Amino acid sequence: MAPTIEFWFEFASTYSYPAAARVEDAARRAGVGVTWRPFLLGPIFGHQGWNDSPFNIYPVKGRYMWRDLERICARLEVPFRRPSQFPRNGLLAARVACSNATEPWLPAFVRGVYRANFAEDRDIAQAATVSDVLDALGLPAAEVLERAQSPAAKQRLREQTDEAIRRGIFGAPTFVVGDELFWGNDRLEDALAWSRT
Amino acid sequence: MAPTIEFWFEFASTYSYPAAARVEDAARRAGVGVTWRPFLLGPIFGHQGWNDSPFNIYPVKGRYMWRDLERICARLEVPFRRPSQFPRNGLLAARVACSNATEPWLPAFVRGVYRANFAEDRDIAQAATVSDVLDALGLPAAEVLERAQSPAAKQRLREQTDEAIRRGIFGAPTFVVGDELFWGNDRLEDALAWSRT
Repeated sequence: MAPTIEFWFEFASTYSYPAAARVEDAARRAGVGVTWRPFLLGPIFGHQGWNDSPFNIYPVKGRYMWRDLERICARLEVPFRRPSQFPRNGLLAARVACSNATEPWLPAFVRGVYRANFAEDRDIAQAATVSDVLDALGLPAAEVLERAQSPAAKQRLREQTDEAIRRGIFGAPTFVVGDELFWGNDRLEDALAWSRT
Repeated sequence: MAPTIEFWFEFASTYSYPAAARVEDAARRAGVGVTWRPFLLGPIFGHQGWNDSPFNIYPVKGRYMWRDLERICARLEVPFRRPSQFPRNGLLAARVACSNATEPWLPAFVRGVYRANFAEDRDIAQAATVSDVLDALGLPAAEVLERAQSPAAKQRLREQTDEAIRRGIFGAPTFVVGDELFWGNDRLEDALAWSRT
């Protein structure tokens, strides 16, 4: 069986954007599979007493992050424009991703939502934005969105977020190999190497 | 003139340990010089409302960090034992480092203090520990420690910490190239690459 990493991501998370852009290619080159695991950081940050992104709560860290993200995207040749609102609410997009996690179009959908948020400055909280991303992939947007808002789909995302908490995930992106966590876009290569040992 | 990076570190900082262990060799291989810049995180964390390490304040993050540090040290073949007390007070060692920052023995001293803290579980806040590190390098420990506690030496470290704050440093290790910050042990390679552009 080919080695696999789990890619835990949240649509509001800045460093998840370059990670989502490169995880599929990097894993393919390493001969490693990827399981896409969307979750929500809100409840996790809430546990830590934060009701906002730590990049807003700690502005010095936030200033660094935006510059760092700009550099990283430039190097990856991934388009980047600092969003006029941060963080944006990724709940709807996460529900879509969670209930379609094994669909072949999922990685392209995830990248499309990140691009809308971090390159096109669009509000991913709006159904119209998520719908446009689905449309661009030739998918039946209305139907996908309806299913993503069913009680079962909502429950699935809640359970996945609970699983993240249970497994010790505290930020995004996090790559997981068995019980080993690798936190941060810059740790993807370490996770891939670990999965092959 | 050869490119140079600044290596900003704090003796209590866990990820500064592997960074200090590898920065000199990595920079030499890249043809880049290193300026060693000790500073104190305490005043910076104080500004953020923390009176302890964030790894203690946020235990889930702390648990991850200890495991991650163990993995990193194993890969670098750097000895590691989780200290029985964390964080330890690196004030005295930082004063020594700050007032001897350009001495040829400085890198070995810095590595010795980190090893005492993170491999030998010794209390680096104690003059006896810092003294042993100096002794092992064949240095006049009593004299070095006395100078390090002079008003001028204390002032020098305060100024260096103020400079860290002014330049937007919020954690350790931080590598600096001009105005560009690279935060974290795992960003050393990025800083080296940046310094050569």
